[in-house]
Amino acid sequence: MDTKSKPAQFRINGERLWDSLMQMAKIGATPKGGVKRLTLTELDRQARDLFVRWCKEAGLAVSVDGVGSIFARRRGREAGAAPVVSGSHLDTQPSGGRFDGCYGVMAALEVARSLNDHAIETRLPFEVAMWTNEEGSRFLPVMGASGAFAGVHTTQEILAARDLEGVSFGDALRAIGYAGAAPVGGRALAAYFEAHIEQGPLLENTGNTIGVVTGALGQRWFDVTVTGMDAHAGPTPMQLRRDALLGASYLIQEVNRLAKATEHARGTVGMIVNRPNSRNVVPGETMFSVDFRDTDIAGLDRMEQGLRAAAATLAAEQRLQIDIRQTVFFPPCHFDRDCVAAVRDGAGRLGYAHMDIVSGAGHDAVHIAGVAPSAMIFVPCEGGISHNEIENAKPEDLAAGCDVLLQAVLAKAA
Amino acid sequence: MDTKSKPAQFRINGERLWDSLMQMAKIGATPKGGVKRLTLTELDRQARDLFVRWCKEAGLAVSVDGVGSIFARRRGREAGAAPVVSGSHLDTQPSGGRFDGCYGVMAALEVARSLNDHAIETRLPFEVAMWTNEEGSRFLPVMGASGAFAGVHTTQEILAARDLEGVSFGDALRAIGYAGAAPVGGRALAAYFEAHIEQGPLLENTGNTIGVVTGALGQRWFDVTVTGMDAHAGPTPMQLRRDALLGASYLIQEVNRLAKATEHARGTVGMIVNRPNSRNVVPGETMFSVDFRDTDIAGLDRMEQGLRAAAATLAAEQRLQIDIRQTVFFPPCHFDRDCVAAVRDGAGRLGYAHMDIVSGAGHDAVHIAGVAPSAMIFVPCEGGISHNEIENAKPEDLAAGCDVLLQAVLAKAA
Repeated sequence: MDTKSKPAQFRINGERLWDSLMQMAKIGATPKGGVKRLTLTELDRQARDLFVRWCKEAGLAVSVDGVGSIFARRRGREAGAAPVVSGSHLDTQPSGGRFDGCYGVMAALEVARSLNDHAIETRLPFEVAMWTNEEGSRFLPVMGASGAFAGVHTTQEILAARDLEGVSFGDALRAIGYAGAAPVGGRALAAYFEAHIEQGPLLENTGNTIGVVTGALGQRWFDVTVTGMDAHAGPTPMQLRRDALLGASYLIQEVNRLAKATEHARGTVGMIVNRPNSRNVVPGETMFSVDFRDTDIAGLDRMEQGLRAAAATLAAEQRLQIDIRQTVFFPPCHFDRDCVAAVRDGAGRLGYAHMDIVSGAGHDAVHIAGVAPSAMIFVPCEGGISHNEIENAKPEDLAAGCDVLLQAVLAKAA
Repeated sequence: MDTKSKPAQFRINGERLWDSLMQMAKIGATPKGGVKRLTLTELDRQARDLFVRWCKEAGLAVSVDGVGSIFARRRGREAGAAPVVSGSHLDTQPSGGRFDGCYGVMAALEVARSLNDHAIETRLPFEVAMWTNEEGSRFLPVMGASGAFAGVHTTQEILAARDLEGVSFGDALRAIGYAGAAPVGGRALAAYFEAHIEQGPLLENTGNTIGVVTGALGQRWFDVTVTGMDAHAGPTPMQLRRDALLGASYLIQEVNRLAKATEHARGTVGMIVNRPNSRNVVPGETMFSVDFRDTDIAGLDRMEQGLRAAAATLAAEQRLQIDIRQTVFFPPCHFDRDCVAAVRDGAGRLGYAHMDIVSGAGHDAVHIAGVAPSAMIFVPCEGGISHNEIENAKPEDLAAGCDVLLQAVLAKAA
């Protein structure tokens, strides 16, 4: 195309993007202004049907793969070439918001619509992707369909997962009519971009509109169980106690200290279960979770070793038994240098205030990055709040992120 | 009587005491060897009926007061004089043991039986007392009937209390036929003694048979609520967090530090409730209980002030809101010097290894000490374990405690 030298003249239609987001948000809308649209439910079917209708209206060719992910393809000059792909997910948390996931799908659709508006013919095909079950609220694992696309999970594993009622992923998928014929993964993508709300406070706090996402933190989770001895709080002198909760309190602080030692590291104790949990009984057993995240394996290892060393010292000093069991591991993800540069250049070209950022949360792009050059674009969300019905974002920021997405897509596909 | 100069020649019947304890333990026996006999239930009625039968067989005159407490009187030479009283309770915790409370009632009964065996006529009457609802497991307040006897609670308050099914104390009392006609309290006692298992490890750890209880710790309980802000554990940098559980962990340690500063003080965090308690969410609200105990008000005040000061500093440093609300207060109890001496002298006279001890737990004697000269006798329990079906004590220790009780009763009543 002849637009390669001046892509900055093209803009997406922010009003149409906002309108699509608000129409999609009606499907599963909650009284508090959020969205509850669990994966593979009747509401998910309605959202998929609307999305597919919009794709077809935009002239895209829709296919559905064996785990229900939807791909809507706009032709390129090189018809058989690997496509540039962009998307995210339409499922939500049980008390989710209007933008988490849905923004990335609607932004990719808006890019396709804008390419139509401007009559831009790209060299490579462009696909809008909707990945099934990113949230993992109904079926595990989280990011299941993108993981299957990337070969991290088998299709069989994904289809066999059951929800709390015992319904399988496969049965639920058939019930809503989205068990597709397309193979799951196994094909080349030229590039993958995902636009998403930040779900954190950095952009808002620093006054930036665009987060150029360079990668995602690796995660290592543990369940820690501290065992002491139940004792009556009155007659038991302090020095004779083996207080499991007191022991846990030291490790909770250690988790936080370890994470504060380096810039991008995170250490969170989110869950604690104390037994017998009675006001006048010295606790005999306390279990808590640890969620460590960092940009590299060495950082995760450092925190794990720090936690284990602190636990060993504490166990000896306070006559406690401490068991540490790993429950989750995602390696750190570093996005493709060229794709990241395409995002950064796009933001710069359009004059949006931007900063490099590392995603603290997992996203479908983290899986796709394993099989295709990938990057993400973050836009601010109000107060950094997400996974919450009050999740909010500004129309102009959402439009800006979508404009940058168009630039990145053009950089790779034009 | 002419026995005053040589009371040490009299011994109780340890075998009969043990046998009575084991018979009583059958009423509400649990598969694990404990007892579940909640106050004012059918099982409580059976235990009361057996106790009353034994009292009558021992020639005692039984009366029941308006809150169901039972008094079984052995005549003294001065028929109208204020009696020496000894007893405890027959109700248990939901997963209680065979000795907590029951031992004090059976020991007092054994003293009456032994006075009969030895044909000892005392100057003052002697009464065996059984106080209703010491445990407070079904109806609040704990130690309700002894509290009413001592004028700490009104009879109306006690009768109006309701259990979780909505049944009132008064209705439950009538249903088992123990709504008595005797006034609640308002009469003089010459002395009150209560024998009890220690429910702590000190006697066993020091190799002593008898605990000479000089008083009971005062108690001040608080519910502390720390409020921060829920946040996604991944995208939220450490320095921007307002982590309620992390804040709570500092205060849990402070509670323990404050209590360790003086010999008899206790500080316990037994209960913690964390919200939303999800592995990858920074906790936004954490509630925990604080149970402070000490021998004097100044000590309780010191710990409360320490906690409030630490909370204020923490709240400012970590941008948390911390609410501290008092839920329970019992002032420290100092038993009567002469009654304590009667116990100590009795133990010495019989050659039992003994030590002075301060009760960490509340007992009916703590209330009665407000209206009569009182003291308690502790005997060891295995591992210091109580409020547990595995609660255990040695027959010889139980007999020793009862022997000392006889000595103390003779010292006051003879």
